[in-house]
Amino acid sequence: MSHPHYELLYHPGNPGRGEFIRLALEAARVPYTDVSNSSKEGYSAVQQTCMSPRNLDSSDGNPPVFAPPALRIPAQEGGGKALVIAQTPNILWYLAEKLDLGPKDEAGRYHVQQVVLTALDLNNEVHDTHHPVAVGKYYEEQREEALKKAEDVRETRIPKYLSYFDRVRQHNERDGDGQGKYLVGSKLSIADTTVWQVLDGLMFAFPKEMEARKKEFPELLGAFYDNVKQEGGLKEYLSSKRRLPYSMGVFRYYKELDRQ
Amino acid sequence: MSHPHYELLYHPGNPGRGEFIRLALEAARVPYTDVSNSSKEGYSAVQQTCMSPRNLDSSDGNPPVFAPPALRIPAQEGGGKALVIAQTPNILWYLAEKLDLGPKDEAGRYHVQQVVLTALDLNNEVHDTHHPVAVGKYYEEQREEALKKAEDVRETRIPKYLSYFDRVRQHNERDGDGQGKYLVGSKLSIADTTVWQVLDGLMFAFPKEMEARKKEFPELLGAFYDNVKQEGGLKEYLSSKRRLPYSMGVFRYYKELDRQ
Repeated sequence: MSHPHYELLYHPGNPGRGEFIRLALEAARVPYTDVSNSSKEGYSAVQQTCMSPRNLDSSDGNPPVFAPPALRIPAQEGGGKALVIAQTPNILWYLAEKLDLGPKDEAGRYHVQQVVLTALDLNNEVHDTHHPVAVGKYYEEQREEALKKAEDVRETRIPKYLSYFDRVRQHNERDGDGQGKYLVGSKLSIADTTVWQVLDGLMFAFPKEMEARKKEFPELLGAFYDNVKQEGGLKEYLSSKRRLPYSMGVFRYYKELDRQ
Repeated sequence: MSHPHYELLYHPGNPGRGEFIRLALEAARVPYTDVSNSSKEGYSAVQQTCMSPRNLDSSDGNPPVFAPPALRIPAQEGGGKALVIAQTPNILWYLAEKLDLGPKDEAGRYHVQQVVLTALDLNNEVHDTHHPVAVGKYYEEQREEALKKAEDVRETRIPKYLSYFDRVRQHNERDGDGQGKYLVGSKLSIADTTVWQVLDGLMFAFPKEMEARKKEFPELLGAFYDNVKQEGGLKEYLSSKRRLPYSMGVFRYYKELDRQ
């Protein structure tokens, strides 16, 4: 199969929401350019396309983008124009189709997407643990509120989400071809890579909390989590320099926000 | 065209996230059952399908659902089983295809979905103005934090989103067939109905704030907003009893959270 040379437009320097897209491309071993991490000028292009608050276009005549990440798909030979699309789940849905990262049947496609969207909701809730009241201000300016939010997310939200992901996995083990390894269908999909990234980020941000939860969800946080790392191009990717370390993005480690 | 008899599974008594789905079905004049608002027993069925924290199935052998809304699509004549899908944008994407509420070309489909997802992100941020630190607790228990969150959403987030929606509209007026009335493409799509519902909810929750913003975004909050109400089955729906009043859902009016 021949693929266009995809361009990921995202902030430089940490995994963030761009990571969900990197994992899909890397799992499928499809080459791409991670624009802001590939050259010094890269981030200017990302800002121009995705963060210009007055533009009526993102680029190449496409409508404006609210925020990164976006994916630029160059025009195919023989004409047309480049397509620029934004919003993480939208990009993942597009790539699932093009990279064969999900079932082909209608039910399977919508079931994959509902798991992806739910994992991304948890990703947003985790972001809000360190930014509960003001997106644009520093953590240190909202630390008191962050302590309350993190407690709620740890105690009521994380277990609710983990239970859901694990029941999706069990459902597909019992009735489908998931073998306990895949959330929907019989092979790796964007549901698996997206849930995996959120689990991995949670283990970084809340190590004590997640260690304690392993007793409740041993398969999800054990065999399922471990298996995804071995799929397709992911093993090579995860030990490469392209896999950025967590830092000041969505998943951050503040000792005081973890289980005490 | 013949459509299956769709069933909307959502909480009873207020518009909430179910409203985005109602608007799509009503715009297309496609009959459906709003399960929890149609009979006394309706909400038990919704709870059984969407809110059972141990079930490995939602219903009809479909995988579990994290939270309402969900859409149940009965089996077609001649076999198969009912399909149950969850997550608001996922359901809207499904309905856009089936109800012809969006462009058919690839670029148009993904551009519609990116606007829908962005409008639903704003919907979530508005929810968090009254529930910034604990989803399951009362507003009164997090009022101090809510004052801070609402200030940030009003002052930095709402204008950023309104600017984005208006620039999408202008882009499609200039380069497409939007005539200033449609966000993507040349006729009503789920992008228009979804943005409309968020604008309408904002006008209820933050009347002073939105009145002041009309000067900055006169077309979006004027002609665009007014036109959507006249499209397809929406005029009839919006004056019917099926259109529920806002109350204690996502969009709530607390005087102290509005512009002072």
